Amino acid sequence: MFNFEITAKNARARAGVFATPHGILQTPVFAPVGTQATVKTLTPAQLAELGASLVLSNTYHLYLRPGDDLVAELGGLHRFMRWPHPMLTDSGGFQVFSLAKTRQIDDEGVTFKSHIDGSTHRFTPERSIRIQENLGADIIMAFDECSDPNDHEYTKIAMERTHRWAERCIKAKRRADQVLFGIVQGGTDSNLRAESARFIVSLNTTGIAIGGLSVGETKDEMHAMLDVVTPLLPDSRPRYLMGVGTPEDLIDGVARGIDIFDCVLPTRLARHHAAFSPEGRLNLMNASFARDERPIDPFCDCYTCRMFTRAYIRHLIAAKELLAGTLLSIHNLRALIRLMDEIRTAIIDGSFDDKKSKLLRQWDNNAVKSVNP
Amino acid sequence: MFNFEITAKNARARAGVFATPHGILQTPVFAPVGTQATVKTLTPAQLAELGASLVLSNTYHLYLRPGDDLVAELGGLHRFMRWPHPMLTDSGGFQVFSLAKTRQIDDEGVTFKSHIDGSTHRFTPERSIRIQENLGADIIMAFDECSDPNDHEYTKIAMERTHRWAERCIKAKRRADQVLFGIVQGGTDSNLRAESARFIVSLNTTGIAIGGLSVGETKDEMHAMLDVVTPLLPDSRPRYLMGVGTPEDLIDGVARGIDIFDCVLPTRLARHHAAFSPEGRLNLMNASFARDERPIDPFCDCYTCRMFTRAYIRHLIAAKELLAGTLLSIHNLRALIRLMDEIRTAIIDGSFDDKKSKLLRQWDNNAVKSVNP
Repeated sequence: MFNFEITAKNARARAGVFATPHGILQTPVFAPVGTQATVKTLTPAQLAELGASLVLSNTYHLYLRPGDDLVAELGGLHRFMRWPHPMLTDSGGFQVFSLAKTRQIDDEGVTFKSHIDGSTHRFTPERSIRIQENLGADIIMAFDECSDPNDHEYTKIAMERTHRWAERCIKAKRRADQVLFGIVQGGTDSNLRAESARFIVSLNTTGIAIGGLSVGETKDEMHAMLDVVTPLLPDSRPRYLMGVGTPEDLIDGVARGIDIFDCVLPTRLARHHAAFSPEGRLNLMNASFARDERPIDPFCDCYTCRMFTRAYIRHLIAAKELLAGTLLSIHNLRALIRLMDEIRTAIIDGSFDDKKSKLLRQWDNNAVKSVNP
Repeated sequence: MFNFEITAKNARARAGVFATPHGILQTPVFAPVGTQATVKTLTPAQLAELGASLVLSNTYHLYLRPGDDLVAELGGLHRFMRWPHPMLTDSGGFQVFSLAKTRQIDDEGVTFKSHIDGSTHRFTPERSIRIQENLGADIIMAFDECSDPNDHEYTKIAMERTHRWAERCIKAKRRADQVLFGIVQGGTDSNLRAESARFIVSLNTTGIAIGGLSVGETKDEMHAMLDVVTPLLPDSRPRYLMGVGTPEDLIDGVARGIDIFDCVLPTRLARHHAAFSPEGRLNLMNASFARDERPIDPFCDCYTCRMFTRAYIRHLIAAKELLAGTLLSIHNLRALIRLMDEIRTAIIDGSFDDKKSKLLRQWDNNAVKSVNP
C-alpha cells in the first residue's frame, strides 16, 4: 500500500516516488496547507488544477472543530473535504505549543485550553494517534514537543520526551492504511540533533520528519541542523521538513536531502496581497500596479497568470474583493509547485547541483521569512 | 451585431434569442451581478461552468474604483475581468440615489458624494453614457432617476426627468457595438407607468428596462405595474426587469413577459450562509446540519452539490473559511440559472402556463425579500 523509492540522486538531493493508498507522490514535493480541511479560498478542483499532489491538514484545528469523531463519521478527511489524493496530518503538537492559550506539560501528555473558546483539552501520544486515525490521512505524525530553540537546557528534556512519545505513538497506531513518521527534534544543538536522528531512525518508522526548525532560528542554524541530521538518515525512507518554507528554503532543503515540505506561506502571503514573481515579491496593493497590464509572472502557467493582469488583481485588492485572495493563492501555490517540478527534473537529469545557485539567485529577491501555521 | 427574436410564446411568457457582439443570450435569462468587475468570490471559469451567460456590472462602482478611464485603457470591462460573454452595465442612477452620501439633483444631472471617500462627483445623462462607453458592456442603460415609490407627487417629476434624460442618452450614445435600453419609471402609479411605457417605447431604444421596482413596494404592486407596462411594449424588443429577483419574482416576471433579470440575491445570500433548496431556504450555519451528509439539493447539478455535504459547508462556515461563500455562491447562482432553463424549456414546449403554479409552489418555501445592489 505504501512504497518509497529513490529514482535519482544528485549529490545529496533525491528524486523519488512515494506510493500511498490515495496515489503516488513524485518527490521532492511541496504540500499546500489546508489547516481546517480547506486550503484557504480554493476549491479542490482549483488545487488539483494547479498541480497539488499532497495536502496537509492540522490535527489540532480539526480536533477542536468540527471534531475528529465527526470527520470519521462522515467518512474521513479525504471524503469530508473532497481531496481524493494523498494527505498528511501533523500531530497537533506544534499548535498546542504555539496556539493554545495555556498549557501544562507532563511526561504523560499536555493539557491545554482551546484558542477558540478556552475549553480544556488533553493530548497524549495515544490520543494524537487516535485523532489522526479518525481523520484518516495517508501520512500521520508522531506527537512531539517543539521547544524554544534558544533554551538549550530545556531542549534536551523536550527531545527526550519526544523520543518516549514516539515509542508510544508506534504502539498506539492501528490502521494499516496509514504510515507514521517519527519526528527528529533537538533545537539548534548539533549533538542533540544527531542523538535525536539516531534514536528516531532506530524506531523504524516509515518516514522521518524534522521538526522544530523555521521557528525563529537563523537560516544558517537551520542549514547546520539539516547538515547534521540528513546524513544520519537511511536513504530508503522519505524525509519531511515540517513547516518549511520559502522558495529558497525548498532549494536549500532539497540540496540537503529533504523530500517533503509544507508551509502556509503561499496562501498567507496571498491574503496579504503578496505574490512570488521573477522580479521579487510583489505587493499587488501598490498603486504602481494600477495600470500594469502584465500578468504577475509572464512565465507562469497558472490560471491567474494566464488570465489576469496585475492591474485587475490590484483593483480587486483595492475594492476588498475576495477573489484577489483566490487568484493570488492559485499563483503562489503554483509557483512553489513549479519550482519543485523544476528541481525534480534537474535532479533526474543530473543538473540540480549545477542549477542550484542559479535557482537560489533567481528566488533570492523573493526572500521572505518562513511562516508556520 | 445585435438581433432579438422571439422563438416561442406561452400566454405572455416569451422565449427568445438575443444576439450580442459577445455571444448569444437565450432568454429569459438571469444575470449574476459583478458589482466591482467580479461576481463576488467566483472566478470567470467558475461562472462559466455554472452556466452564466450575461453578467451585470455597476457603473457607479466602476466609475469610482478603478475608474472607467482605466478600464478603457486596459481594453474594457470584458477584457479587464476576463468575461468574454455578454455584459450589461446599469447607468449608475440607482446607486447615486441609494448609496451615495449626499446628492443634489437638477434637470441637468446629479451631484453626489462618493460613499467610499466623500469626494464630490457629477453624473449627467451624457456622462453616464460616456462612462458606459468606456466600460464597453454590450447592453447599456439610460440614466434615470429612481424615486421613492410612496411619494406619488415626486414620482411624476422624476419620471418626466427620466424621459428627458433618456432622450439625451440616445443623442449622447456613439458606439455601434453597444445597445441602449430606455428605462420605464413611474413608481406604483398605473397611470404614470403607462405614460412612461408609451414614452420610452416611442424612443425606439433596442430594449426596454423597467426600473424602480423591488425597491420597497409590495409584490402585488410590482405585479400590477408589470401588468400595466408589458402589454404596452412591442413584442420585438427585449425587456429587462432591473434588480429583480427572488425565484418567485423570476417566475412571476417571465409570466408577465419579462426577458432579462439581474439580482445580487444569490451571492448576497451566500455570504450570509443561506442556500436555495427544495426544502426551502437553508441557513447552513445551523447546528442541525453538522452531521448532514446530503448535498444542499440532491437534484442540483452544480459543483457544490456534486461534491460537498451540508456538514462540510457548515464546518466551513463555523470555521469562518471563505470557501463557504464560494461554494454557496456557486449553488445559489446555479439554482436560479437552472430555474430559468426549466422555465425556458417549458415556454418552448408550451407547458409554462400550466407549470407556473407548480414552480411557484416549489419555490414558495424559498421566499425571501428581493435585495437590490
